[in-house]
Amino acid sequence: MPRDPRHDVLFEPVQIGPRTLRNRFYQVPHCTGFGTGKPLSQARHRGVKAEGGWAAVCTEYAAVSPDSDEAPFAHVRIWDDDDIPLIRPTAEAAHAHGALAGIELFHGGVHGHNADSRLPPLAPSQIAGDYNGQVPKAMTQSDIRRVQTEWVRAAERSRDAGFDIVYAYGGHTYLLGQFLSPYYNQRSDAYGGSFLNRARFWLELLEMLDDAVGEDCAIAARLAIAAGGADAGVSLDEGLEFVRLADRHVDLWDVNISSISEWSRDSGVSRFFKAGWQLEWTGEVRRATAKPIVGVGRLTDADQMAAIIRSGVWDLIGAARPSIADPYLPRKIEEGRLDEIRECIGCNMCVVKGDGNGHLGCTQNATAGEEYRRGWHPERFAPAANRTKDVLVVGAGPAGMECAIVLARRGFGRVHLATRDTEIGGIMRWVPRLPGLGEWGRVLDWRRIQLEKLRRQVEIVTATDLDAAAVRDYGAEIVVVATGAQWSPVGLNGITRGPILGADARLAHCLTPEQVMLDGKRPPGSRVVVYDCEGWYAGAGMAELLRAERCEVTILTPHERVAHETDAALEGPMLRQHLHDLGIRLRPGRTVTTVAPEGVSGTDEFGVPFELACDAVILTTQRVSDGALFAALDDEPGTLEAVYAVGDCVAPRVIADAIFDGHRLAREIDAADPARPLPWRRERAALA
Amino acid sequence: MPRDPRHDVLFEPVQIGPRTLRNRFYQVPHCTGFGTGKPLSQARHRGVKAEGGWAAVCTEYAAVSPDSDEAPFAHVRIWDDDDIPLIRPTAEAAHAHGALAGIELFHGGVHGHNADSRLPPLAPSQIAGDYNGQVPKAMTQSDIRRVQTEWVRAAERSRDAGFDIVYAYGGHTYLLGQFLSPYYNQRSDAYGGSFLNRARFWLELLEMLDDAVGEDCAIAARLAIAAGGADAGVSLDEGLEFVRLADRHVDLWDVNISSISEWSRDSGVSRFFKAGWQLEWTGEVRRATAKPIVGVGRLTDADQMAAIIRSGVWDLIGAARPSIADPYLPRKIEEGRLDEIRECIGCNMCVVKGDGNGHLGCTQNATAGEEYRRGWHPERFAPAANRTKDVLVVGAGPAGMECAIVLARRGFGRVHLATRDTEIGGIMRWVPRLPGLGEWGRVLDWRRIQLEKLRRQVEIVTATDLDAAAVRDYGAEIVVVATGAQWSPVGLNGITRGPILGADARLAHCLTPEQVMLDGKRPPGSRVVVYDCEGWYAGAGMAELLRAERCEVTILTPHERVAHETDAALEGPMLRQHLHDLGIRLRPGRTVTTVAPEGVSGTDEFGVPFELACDAVILTTQRVSDGALFAALDDEPGTLEAVYAVGDCVAPRVIADAIFDGHRLAREIDAADPARPLPWRRERAALA
Repeated sequence: MPRDPRHDVLFEPVQIGPRTLRNRFYQVPHCTGFGTGKPLSQARHRGVKAEGGWAAVCTEYAAVSPDSDEAPFAHVRIWDDDDIPLIRPTAEAAHAHGALAGIELFHGGVHGHNADSRLPPLAPSQIAGDYNGQVPKAMTQSDIRRVQTEWVRAAERSRDAGFDIVYAYGGHTYLLGQFLSPYYNQRSDAYGGSFLNRARFWLELLEMLDDAVGEDCAIAARLAIAAGGADAGVSLDEGLEFVRLADRHVDLWDVNISSISEWSRDSGVSRFFKAGWQLEWTGEVRRATAKPIVGVGRLTDADQMAAIIRSGVWDLIGAARPSIADPYLPRKIEEGRLDEIRECIGCNMCVVKGDGNGHLGCTQNATAGEEYRRGWHPERFAPAANRTKDVLVVGAGPAGMECAIVLARRGFGRVHLATRDTEIGGIMRWVPRLPGLGEWGRVLDWRRIQLEKLRRQVEIVTATDLDAAAVRDYGAEIVVVATGAQWSPVGLNGITRGPILGADARLAHCLTPEQVMLDGKRPPGSRVVVYDCEGWYAGAGMAELLRAERCEVTILTPHERVAHETDAALEGPMLRQHLHDLGIRLRPGRTVTTVAPEGVSGTDEFGVPFELACDAVILTTQRVSDGALFAALDDEPGTLEAVYAVGDCVAPRVIADAIFDGHRLAREIDAADPARPLPWRRERAALA
Repeated sequence: MPRDPRHDVLFEPVQIGPRTLRNRFYQVPHCTGFGTGKPLSQARHRGVKAEGGWAAVCTEYAAVSPDSDEAPFAHVRIWDDDDIPLIRPTAEAAHAHGALAGIELFHGGVHGHNADSRLPPLAPSQIAGDYNGQVPKAMTQSDIRRVQTEWVRAAERSRDAGFDIVYAYGGHTYLLGQFLSPYYNQRSDAYGGSFLNRARFWLELLEMLDDAVGEDCAIAARLAIAAGGADAGVSLDEGLEFVRLADRHVDLWDVNISSISEWSRDSGVSRFFKAGWQLEWTGEVRRATAKPIVGVGRLTDADQMAAIIRSGVWDLIGAARPSIADPYLPRKIEEGRLDEIRECIGCNMCVVKGDGNGHLGCTQNATAGEEYRRGWHPERFAPAANRTKDVLVVGAGPAGMECAIVLARRGFGRVHLATRDTEIGGIMRWVPRLPGLGEWGRVLDWRRIQLEKLRRQVEIVTATDLDAAAVRDYGAEIVVVATGAQWSPVGLNGITRGPILGADARLAHCLTPEQVMLDGKRPPGSRVVVYDCEGWYAGAGMAELLRAERCEVTILTPHERVAHETDAALEGPMLRQHLHDLGIRLRPGRTVTTVAPEGVSGTDEFGVPFELACDAVILTTQRVSDGALFAALDDEPGTLEAVYAVGDCVAPRVIADAIFDGHRLAREIDAADPARPLPWRRERAALA
């Protein structure tokens, strides 16, 4: 299908200094968990995006100096010539597919972790960091000169490694932003005080970069143009003034919002931020420059992108998360395959997984981060050796749907996707109906559409509850059980390691999320306790939903914070503020040991007993696998050739990992033992 | 000096299965931050201890299976044959110095992070983890068989790599302990229920290991013999019963206490645990076995060690932290150099730094973790090329003292260590006087003793306040400024990024820790607020001290927890409980914006204003460098050949890093530019 002419504007080339972007899709720098620690994983991840049509792909933050050492967080390091071979594969991977390669050269300033270097962080002024609390060294002028020189050396090394775009990254209030911001910069010398003085460090650097590599590389400046509601960054007015001042040395303005301690406003979750929200601020930058501008805002809709370009405010559509969810987004728009785009749902699982916790993953895209490790390509699937078999997938939640789709793409012609429910989706039938999680519905939307396209290969069987005998008699040779999990109806939890005395969801005053969302069960009175041991979205969602129905809601959790797991998704503080603003009482540090019709009791964080009167308790303590079908089939497979289990019915997990599991099985369904994942390629240390 | 005959017993060899320990000093497994990710750093760290006289050195936890993947925490992996070259250097380093090499083979079970593998954690039963909250897969019997087989393969690979001791590590309630503990194991098959059933998994494994590698390797079982006050582990009675049951397949019992979620009771801080505290439980194991037993308990005193051995309860003195603080502890006891032992202070900075945060470090031993990276040896110092110069060190706190000592060891004959105070020590004059921190006094004790021994090279000059002119005229060619830092007298903090309105330590109602500890200043009334933005020991220490003086004390902090930084040292929860038990009110989430004689005001975590009446405020907001002397000398060095600054006067930091900085400068005082650390050796990824 040809592309929609309305989207033609997105495919115009754009000149940035000495280089040309082939179109207007630009993968802005984002973390992966690879850095230079896993250079080949880094390269392949970026290379797949280049293949998917992005005009440029950029690395994550690349430290120019050992006093900006992000360990233990994965990052790129360009500290000496021996780092060049570690970044070259990424530039080569980009070039192999016609994309430019960018490197986000940076210095963390006061936010440097420096766990590896053991150097003190540097900053314009000696004020404790608002991000990690360390007290920095106030930079001397010779420190300033040294860091500028190191930056230039890093740029030269990047050019030598093949990079086309080098950054002077001052967004997220890293060092350059710290100098520019009066919030961090309280110096009284030539580098502090007046706006011009605060801009001096960055300006000088841009001139040095221009001199050193400006003929070969585009110079990109990344600027957080406004704090997005807070005060740690650079004001809009001063941001624009800086753009005017520095414009002659900059080939590309990469603009976003907020400081690193408010990164949650930049990499905003869909609960709180609608696609394009940053335009309110970054859309103003055009007033200050005619140079190319790239902005972000979780954009996945081609019409919206084209409208932004036509409006003239940006020249390039930047993407981090949308490029992770679908590395082929540009190509799919180009080819008019809009309904094949896996749209980012704004859950920030990429951040949870990529930021210091292994490597990035994605709810929508099971192959994200697995390109080199497992050799997975998001759009290419090898025909399975056993594709002539019939496969019955029992359960049509995230894992089952994904498994069926990938089996079909691997050439299976007779896949049966069966569910006892009246429609497919599993937990995705109700999770997106929790307040604020509407965009998560894209997980189901995308899979429903692909299954529709694959309908000659995948038969969907709804409202059919198959027991073990029925599965054995179904006629399929291979069975994949994906029956999911349910919230414990008795309050089973890992804190007391057992059910809660008196908790029983058969009673009127005890409710599980499924009862509330699928069965319409409601509390018998208005005073509701949500007892949340899990700390993801379910407890908070139940609280908000019942609060909207005018209940008096209290969230109790044994953890130190309500919804503590959402902190890793950059959501926690905003979510707690939101719950508080709704009038929901937040009571962390409470372990519930008894549930009764008149209330709950337990102990607080110091072991002191407490009681709380209420009419009902919502139990989000833990989920329990619905593993009975698999166990029965595993015990007695009859004539079945193989029986596997995937997703929550094996162990309840985040949606991204359930989808990953279904995908993984289908990718390896013709391996020697599909039940066990094949070893992935590990990048190990070189032995001297 | 010959060793004290009372310590002879510590130097008897001990047979463990097919191997012989040359003496009774045993470095039990402990984390380093190196794992197999940094194999040469691992090897050199262990090798230095072997050189220091330990009879065995062991790696940290070594995962036998990809479903026990501790990423992002550094760990050893023995998953396939390609891992063998990564562990061999450690075995070789041990053997090169006459020690045995042990490897702590393990499976994390429900506590597995699995960020890299993306596999669900495994457990006996499907109950959410008490450590990281994940819901595991309940292991099938085929899972059990598979893990046992993987363990045996890992043991064979370890033997092939040269290891002498292989572990079946079930301490800290990892998988083996989970099966043994009814708290985790709620199975109803042959592997759950009765004690014998719960013991089966581990017993079978021990037999398999014995069969596979028992002729070549000693089989060690690590068992948490009791929970040490909590209920997640294995009871003493059942622990002893397990020892009896498994004894014939075990060559060495490595016993400790507590579960991983209560690891704080095992790696106990000196604030709450006295040396040898674990004997209360682990001292009972002898009742169940005649085989060699190793136990731990932060033992640094040779008399106490000898008494334990003579008592017969243990055969070996185990050490993790004492071996980090002084890798030469055995040799120093052997050579009667007891006053040269750097005794562990029980601060757990090794945990803070080693556990997921770079690599281990140590307050007492600046070379810990730097053995390969920087080539530092704890006991060997190369003569400096410029050692004939006079060096004046101004400031005799941790950084200054350490610098002077290392300069002397590098052959400088004329080092002058000057302080304006009447005695040396800097902040260590008062920090160990905070309640519970007495053992931290060893930092000063050890350095005072070494300086006394080095008195022909280091002249100590007290009660002498040198200004820049006086320093220039002193007569030294090289000057090292180590003038430290002071708590901000105006409440400067990184939350509001400025002083606090009304805060001024010249007033009666505003106090800094130095005023309280050194000047005897006390609150003008009994109602005291400690406003703690820093979150280490100072705020809590002030609160406890003033509470002991009968003040009504409230700790306010803008952070989510009081003393939040101490969590990383395994201290936070116990410390908060302790403060609570003392009657100190803990109020997290409070940002103070105004201080007045009648009280403080500010906003809570949701932005809601609050006021709190009090008579005085203790300000532990941040420290500020005393950098004036260095700045003056740097501006105008006169005839000085070189002026350097180290430690808190550059940037306030934890004591370990201040000592490190002083040490670093002295190690590199004859480098081309001593002000900048030499590059350290980085272990980079191999490119395929």
